[in-house]
Amino acid sequence: MAKYMFIDDVNNLLSEDKWLILQEQYDSKLNQRYETIFTLANGYMGVRGIFEEGSEDECPGNFIAGIFDKSEAQVRELVNAQNWLGIKVYVDGKCLKLDKCDILSFKRVLDMKHGILFKSMVLKNDANKITRIEGYRFLSRYNVHRAAIKLFITPINYSGTVSIENIIDGTVLNSKESPALKTKHLRLIENTVFNEGGIYLETATRDDDIRIGTGSYVKIYSNNDKNNIAKFRRFTSLGEVCSEYFEFDALENETVEIDKFVATYTSRDVLKEDLKNFVKNEVLNFAAEGIDNELLNHIKIYEKLWNIADINIEGDDLADKALRFNIFHLMSSINENDPNVSIAAKALHGEGYKGHVFWDTEIFMLPFFIYVYPKAARTLLMYRYKMLDSARQNALLNGYKGAQYPWESADTGKEETPRWGFDYKGNPVRIWTGDIEYHITADIAFAVFEYYRATDDIDFMLNYGAEIILETARFWASRCEYNKRLDRYEINDVIGPDEFHEHINNNSYTNFLAQWNIRKALEFIGILKSKYPSKYEFLSSKICLTEKELKNWKEVMSKIYIPFDKDKKLMEQFEGYFEKKDYIIEKFDENNMPIWPDGVDVTKLNDTQLIKQADVVMLMLLLGEEFDEETKKVNYEYYQKRTMHKSSLGPSMYSIMGLKVGDYKNAYHSFIRSATVDLVDNQGNTKEGLHAASAGGTWQVAVYGFGGMYIDREGILNINPWLPEKWNKLSYKIHWKGNFLHVNITKDEANIKVLEKSGKGLKVKIKGKEILL
Amino acid sequence: MAKYMFIDDVNNLLSEDKWLILQEQYDSKLNQRYETIFTLANGYMGVRGIFEEGSEDECPGNFIAGIFDKSEAQVRELVNAQNWLGIKVYVDGKCLKLDKCDILSFKRVLDMKHGILFKSMVLKNDANKITRIEGYRFLSRYNVHRAAIKLFITPINYSGTVSIENIIDGTVLNSKESPALKTKHLRLIENTVFNEGGIYLETATRDDDIRIGTGSYVKIYSNNDKNNIAKFRRFTSLGEVCSEYFEFDALENETVEIDKFVATYTSRDVLKEDLKNFVKNEVLNFAAEGIDNELLNHIKIYEKLWNIADINIEGDDLADKALRFNIFHLMSSINENDPNVSIAAKALHGEGYKGHVFWDTEIFMLPFFIYVYPKAARTLLMYRYKMLDSARQNALLNGYKGAQYPWESADTGKEETPRWGFDYKGNPVRIWTGDIEYHITADIAFAVFEYYRATDDIDFMLNYGAEIILETARFWASRCEYNKRLDRYEINDVIGPDEFHEHINNNSYTNFLAQWNIRKALEFIGILKSKYPSKYEFLSSKICLTEKELKNWKEVMSKIYIPFDKDKKLMEQFEGYFEKKDYIIEKFDENNMPIWPDGVDVTKLNDTQLIKQADVVMLMLLLGEEFDEETKKVNYEYYQKRTMHKSSLGPSMYSIMGLKVGDYKNAYHSFIRSATVDLVDNQGNTKEGLHAASAGGTWQVAVYGFGGMYIDREGILNINPWLPEKWNKLSYKIHWKGNFLHVNITKDEANIKVLEKSGKGLKVKIKGKEILL
Repeated sequence: MAKYMFIDDVNNLLSEDKWLILQEQYDSKLNQRYETIFTLANGYMGVRGIFEEGSEDECPGNFIAGIFDKSEAQVRELVNAQNWLGIKVYVDGKCLKLDKCDILSFKRVLDMKHGILFKSMVLKNDANKITRIEGYRFLSRYNVHRAAIKLFITPINYSGTVSIENIIDGTVLNSKESPALKTKHLRLIENTVFNEGGIYLETATRDDDIRIGTGSYVKIYSNNDKNNIAKFRRFTSLGEVCSEYFEFDALENETVEIDKFVATYTSRDVLKEDLKNFVKNEVLNFAAEGIDNELLNHIKIYEKLWNIADINIEGDDLADKALRFNIFHLMSSINENDPNVSIAAKALHGEGYKGHVFWDTEIFMLPFFIYVYPKAARTLLMYRYKMLDSARQNALLNGYKGAQYPWESADTGKEETPRWGFDYKGNPVRIWTGDIEYHITADIAFAVFEYYRATDDIDFMLNYGAEIILETARFWASRCEYNKRLDRYEINDVIGPDEFHEHINNNSYTNFLAQWNIRKALEFIGILKSKYPSKYEFLSSKICLTEKELKNWKEVMSKIYIPFDKDKKLMEQFEGYFEKKDYIIEKFDENNMPIWPDGVDVTKLNDTQLIKQADVVMLMLLLGEEFDEETKKVNYEYYQKRTMHKSSLGPSMYSIMGLKVGDYKNAYHSFIRSATVDLVDNQGNTKEGLHAASAGGTWQVAVYGFGGMYIDREGILNINPWLPEKWNKLSYKIHWKGNFLHVNITKDEANIKVLEKSGKGLKVKIKGKEILL
Repeated sequence: MAKYMFIDDVNNLLSEDKWLILQEQYDSKLNQRYETIFTLANGYMGVRGIFEEGSEDECPGNFIAGIFDKSEAQVRELVNAQNWLGIKVYVDGKCLKLDKCDILSFKRVLDMKHGILFKSMVLKNDANKITRIEGYRFLSRYNVHRAAIKLFITPINYSGTVSIENIIDGTVLNSKESPALKTKHLRLIENTVFNEGGIYLETATRDDDIRIGTGSYVKIYSNNDKNNIAKFRRFTSLGEVCSEYFEFDALENETVEIDKFVATYTSRDVLKEDLKNFVKNEVLNFAAEGIDNELLNHIKIYEKLWNIADINIEGDDLADKALRFNIFHLMSSINENDPNVSIAAKALHGEGYKGHVFWDTEIFMLPFFIYVYPKAARTLLMYRYKMLDSARQNALLNGYKGAQYPWESADTGKEETPRWGFDYKGNPVRIWTGDIEYHITADIAFAVFEYYRATDDIDFMLNYGAEIILETARFWASRCEYNKRLDRYEINDVIGPDEFHEHINNNSYTNFLAQWNIRKALEFIGILKSKYPSKYEFLSSKICLTEKELKNWKEVMSKIYIPFDKDKKLMEQFEGYFEKKDYIIEKFDENNMPIWPDGVDVTKLNDTQLIKQADVVMLMLLLGEEFDEETKKVNYEYYQKRTMHKSSLGPSMYSIMGLKVGDYKNAYHSFIRSATVDLVDNQGNTKEGLHAASAGGTWQVAVYGFGGMYIDREGILNINPWLPEKWNKLSYKIHWKGNFLHVNITKDEANIKVLEKSGKGLKVKIKGKEILL
């Protein structure tokens, strides 16, 4: 990071290169991609990386976790709340915008270590006046209600009046670029000033009247003597836009500093009637304290977070930085103090998938949290526990028992999957996932056990986890259909993880996990009965669980049909899959993404063996201890050739399984594809938000794949690593049953350092060799 | 107008070329200029010529006469009301915008004969899909609450789903491009749909809660069989934006028609509680009737208007069309049925001068209405009568008697001149015109007499005009200051028509007209006393006018000081003007506009003899019968060399006076400059609205100047024409004392045809020769 870029104080903030994501050239066509890449989030809120001065092709996004609304939209969606980023700089009365000026220099930098977004640009306007605008923004992780922007404005070749406009924009829409879908979720409640200075915009969601209050206060002072230089101020209430205008005299080559303080509260945080006061006090106190102190506290938290989460890859800067990018956005998306929210498929980074929570969270992201931030993992599972009643209602509504989790979940836990979407050719199609992609319910049960296995958090299990597991098992027992002729239980008319095939029968992934779910529930009931009888008494009484029902579970479980060719050791993705038209993928595009084999009709994928993403392979990864090496290899090789990777969830999973079965060649490539999915936009839709599941998958490849971490049948932590050619070293840290471990891997050896100890000695295996830590 | 341009039905509507104003090339930098040029108005409302699909650099304007609001603005200003023009056309989900497509062909045409704006364009999008969009819009002159847009959409090289968005946009601002001034005058009342179809947006002015209701209904049908083809509709309430979305299947080379019906009412028209119903009924009835019938009625009215107003210049197409353009916008700006509104300096065509009414109306525009549409002229004067009480309050507030009209007048008649503006260098300056540019009060009295002289409308005089004249005379008598030493009355610390000089004493224009105002009042009192004694009794009693006061008026009148060099016959613009630094204008720019003489400090114009516009010359034009030819010539020659023409009001006046004093060379040039002020934007600010005073001035040059019409000392209509070299013929129509006359002038002769007769014989003079018609 060259010193010339920012003025010294700011420059000192910047980390070394491995922490920085750079944009060095402005291209308006890439604005929306960078908005996602440069999103800042603190778990409470996520704000896309638009420019303070606005740009024509931007897609602003300010998402507050847990605030959903439907209005005219198809389903409840994460609300795009008022945009408080606006600071327009006017020279000669005209706004300095990138699209309207000569850009003499340009740079944006995301400092992942500190969670700060920097910018620096030098713009020349029509009148040949040159202005340098530099600065940074952050969303405080210390006090999540606070955010700030600092700008340094320097007229390079002129002196004169410069003015700025401080804006909170309430005209924001969801799906703003789609005339058929765009929706306004907010109505204006108040657009005003505080008597003490500063502006305030309050909105309310249209359906539920959830209030969102945003306050802002601006200071303008000279970089030299820190004196206020604003000479004129005007507030205007522009309907849904809150606008505060300032003028000041700027001198050639003298820098003016602008501090914008922002505070956000909602009626999820405080009472409606107190909202404005909370915001006012927060923003005025913040302004009184100044930016520096908050920034320091913010940085300290990020340093703590990184101290646990950072993974080092030596010898491969790209892999090292790209992995860090994924970890940065995952850690920024969690609010471990709020069990009412989870992490959406696009996190707090965009409107894609409407802010809904899918199996992505439990299957792809949760492992990161389980091993890195177990408290956060517990919070994520608590979200599912809080939604258990809704899952019970979902089951009831669909004619089943127990708890059926929705395929897409928002704030109520009801099914929020839109019923209509578009196919690859743009034709409207009925979306069936919300009706029949049942496996999510087993995925959540699986996640509960994963968490429990890694943390031994029996408190969570007794109070929350067990109830989830029993109710999901109960759902499966009721969902299975008895086939009298074949004396087996089937699950028909479903969609598995591979969504190319709809309305299929006996999807192996679904059936196997359903069976596993019931089995684990029965096992855990055994533990409860023997070790925690009063808990079991309470729980079984609460959910009216009888011995008769348990007997039925056992019966169902023992007879669930799994289509499996024992001779070939090949699992059939679903009943009849092998009879589908077979296409082998042989061609790849410049991003090494599969190309549709010749002759495929993309509107009739149901008729082919092509699949969207890992399905059978996914199952064998999740329940690795249930399948032998040979089986994994056979299935990996079969399905790998037929997977189109139309989901970003795929590459990481194939990468891990590849490493397990000895396909090292593809593993590295898939890892890089997964790690850079947003950085190079290889799915083409980064603008819609972060590929959060892929981010979690990327972490899994690093730790489970190259890092070789797995839990064996005996529940022992194994480290069985494999490093790509150019990697000299891989090191990561994990929590395991209360211990905090540092795993260091080189080509020659692997070792584990205990950083924090839970008490008792810990048995692990490194490359199969048992070690007591 | 080439036939290929529009589909046949539309093409048939178009007039011959002399009626058409064309834009043949798209240049986004000129958007705002064309918005003014292509403004449609029907007296009730004016709508700037923005594109239905919107453009980045547009400045939308929908002005409803008489609706003013202050809010955070400096003064009350004409409100920019919700913009109902929006129709966005989407192909492949992306809006077809001029700035985003390849423009294969483009044309906009204002048909002045019919008051219709046409457009035709062929656009190619990113995907090489070519679409032709043609159509027209009009604001009905038959039913001023109605407006309609018709579009013909033809996919040239594709078939597929096309969608449109019908928009009423309530986010509009005044002064939107100025961060320091931009103001929101409206708050949202309702954004909804009618059950019967169609959308509705209601807003209210923030200060006075004046409601504005706009409804819209859209029909989409095939040009072939006229069947409805909209297959999907969705309404969305986007905060302050009302949006209705339609999809339809469009076939290659088959034209789809879109009819957009719009209705507007305000709480100035109907009761608040009835507003929505009025709008609903109007728009639904309109939609049921269809566009054609309304268009026909609209055209009929324009034909009637033109039948009176059109002026023909043979041999000079430019002059002929440019003059027509000015007349078109003047006739479109008047609502002769609403005496509560007048015509603003920028008419209903832009935000310049905030929709305020200046002397421009009475001195520059009114003559057109007096002689062309005398009923409209009476309405304009009735506006001043309605504001008489406010003028009384203004006088009282300033310590005077009688009625003092405000320099800038809005809906209340109070002074609305902003107190601060910017000088030529952009520095803030105190604006003094609202405080001391007193002459407006005499200008209005003058206009009353002008109207009366031409119409003999004694009813107006007895009931309204006399009261204005007496109260303005009374104002002047109280405003004059007695100078004991010199035994004379002075009017000190004023601004005359030339605004380069502020805080001057004894401005000849002001003093002379003040004296004239008092004299005419006294004369009219004589008439009242002798002919209408009971009227006089009533009036003098109403305004408490005593004989003692009249004696004082006579005393003041007889001693008002006019700085005049009797030897040189040169009137001094104000006391001390001749001692100012003298600069003679010698250089002109490419538009033949004066260039500042070397050495002039534009921030100290007060110290020079340079003037902004006609002042002494203006006086000698208005009261031509008071000055001999020699005096006019001397003064014209002196001041002409010192006039910078920084007001568009100047050229036309110098042109007329030039013709009177034999300066034929400059007259034609000044006429063209005045006639094309907006068409070629020679003042550089056409985007802010029509130069309505210049439009009136242009008419005056044609009729008073080249047409040689004037009223002599005996009150006889004279025609003393002079035609420029290339003019073969000039013909115009005027009303004169109840007669409707057609004046035809060629190089050789001039004659008058009586089209309608008031009864008695009429004496006129043509080139000095008395004729009895």
